[in-house]
Amino acid sequence: MYGIGIDIGGTNTKFAVVDNSFKIKEKFDIPTPLKSYRIFIQNISNVIKNLKEKYKSIGVHIAVAGDVDYEKGILRYAPNLSGWVYKEIKKDIEKEVKVEVSVDNDANMAGYGAYIFELKKKYKDIVTFTLGTGVGGGIIIDGKIIRGFNSTAGEIGHMVIVENGSKCNCGNRGCLEAYCGSYGIIREFMEAIGDYKSYIKKYMDINFKKIDPYSLYLLAKKGDKIAIRLWKYYGYKLGTGIGNILMILNPQIVVLSGGVSKAAEFFMPYIKKRLSEYGIKTPVKNVKIHISKEKDLGVVGSACYVLER
Amino acid sequence: MYGIGIDIGGTNTKFAVVDNSFKIKEKFDIPTPLKSYRIFIQNISNVIKNLKEKYKSIGVHIAVAGDVDYEKGILRYAPNLSGWVYKEIKKDIEKEVKVEVSVDNDANMAGYGAYIFELKKKYKDIVTFTLGTGVGGGIIIDGKIIRGFNSTAGEIGHMVIVENGSKCNCGNRGCLEAYCGSYGIIREFMEAIGDYKSYIKKYMDINFKKIDPYSLYLLAKKGDKIAIRLWKYYGYKLGTGIGNILMILNPQIVVLSGGVSKAAEFFMPYIKKRLSEYGIKTPVKNVKIHISKEKDLGVVGSACYVLER
Repeated sequence: MYGIGIDIGGTNTKFAVVDNSFKIKEKFDIPTPLKSYRIFIQNISNVIKNLKEKYKSIGVHIAVAGDVDYEKGILRYAPNLSGWVYKEIKKDIEKEVKVEVSVDNDANMAGYGAYIFELKKKYKDIVTFTLGTGVGGGIIIDGKIIRGFNSTAGEIGHMVIVENGSKCNCGNRGCLEAYCGSYGIIREFMEAIGDYKSYIKKYMDINFKKIDPYSLYLLAKKGDKIAIRLWKYYGYKLGTGIGNILMILNPQIVVLSGGVSKAAEFFMPYIKKRLSEYGIKTPVKNVKIHISKEKDLGVVGSACYVLER
Repeated sequence: MYGIGIDIGGTNTKFAVVDNSFKIKEKFDIPTPLKSYRIFIQNISNVIKNLKEKYKSIGVHIAVAGDVDYEKGILRYAPNLSGWVYKEIKKDIEKEVKVEVSVDNDANMAGYGAYIFELKKKYKDIVTFTLGTGVGGGIIIDGKIIRGFNSTAGEIGHMVIVENGSKCNCGNRGCLEAYCGSYGIIREFMEAIGDYKSYIKKYMDINFKKIDPYSLYLLAKKGDKIAIRLWKYYGYKLGTGIGNILMILNPQIVVLSGGVSKAAEFFMPYIKKRLSEYGIKTPVKNVKIHISKEKDLGVVGSACYVLER
């Protein structure tokens, strides 16, 4: 039996195949076919059919960035996938491929990937923060994904940490994501530097196609004071998000994954400083904070999940 | 087999006895013997011995407001119990009474009492907010108490909702408890009214021994504008605490218990208003908010827990 994991993002869709000892057999990606939902189902199903021919016995688990009904395999809403509403992904793909398909939230799967693939089940109580455009969360307690009553648990990016704070993409104010999603830190940077073009002249050797968390990381490496200050601010805010999770769930380990976690060397000291301000010391003293090394936790986690579901 | 629940508070210690269909046989309380830890153990053990004589087959579960190591039955720290540090309550009482004893956090037990006794297991994913001097939390997922790695999970009163906000008893700033613990709302009231004695002259028919949440509730009932405004403020802040929990855990039901929940008629509309501001709608739309009717959830929950542990 082989596990096929699929991670559907707004730009690319990733595929991973693992065998039943969680060894990765292959990984690849295709542009997400967003022309229409019908074409999307056809293209994804075609890839699955090819994998079925190659590996014979397979199961499929699909991770999507969005509000997913896990029990029914329905995508309730996905702002990044053409705003699709109520798409019966499980049913529609199963009709095409005659293989068992389940559908999940991508941050849950990053958490599961951390648990199985990266931490090798050595820890059982884990909260994974996925730091990308948004901030996602995957909660594992006693080795099981916590999904909640409508399978929306883990939306840690939308806990409010600053009352009446910065505007979040969700519509609310002061969410963790409004500060620690990449759009938050980029907005802060643009506000801080004023004139973008004259500012970056100093750094002609960095390839500035766009300002993103990676270029802010490179700027900090060059010693740019504004970038360094922003990562400090980022760490302090993320520290509040992590501190709140420690109070509520007292996990054994917190995993930071996603593209933005690359800049950890600049923000980690401020996470620790912030955590030291919390008054309830036991959960703070005992937690480990782990920076993920695997960049495709979501799709690898999905593939592993097939073998355990 | 009878379950003996004990809830040790800073002033009184409550006892409850339930039979194995969770029917309460008796409830009583004694002043908490805080003279010394040795006297405390002796007095509590004496009560247990008497109950053992009366009911023959018993088990004991003890709830304490403090940092408890559930696995070992050790009280790590209890600010309200003479600041006791590292007291081996389980071992010390078992030596006296020859009955199995376990030790737990009081807010966990209020949550468990809500699950078993008040909600009759009709809901499986529950978060209980205990609104008293502090704000405690009990998290039940799929019918099990979530304790976390060091059994400190559920410290929802110490999630930060206002960065650099009001000072909390824990030492941090902007915790939920700093606003929704009774000391928070009393502080706000005293600041708002200025001269206490001349202010309360208007309300001679209310027995003003002290300003506490109950007197603020009575003032609101009388139409006092400051008290009404404070409960509005309280509801908004508690709404942020509840909203954050909905994002993170997506429970089926939130239970509000503890003395301050009596004033729900004044703060509930603002909880709902606050929740409507959250951008992730599914967990908000589907949750029920329940005001507990049972005033001794902690001790009753402890007694019930004996029969299920």
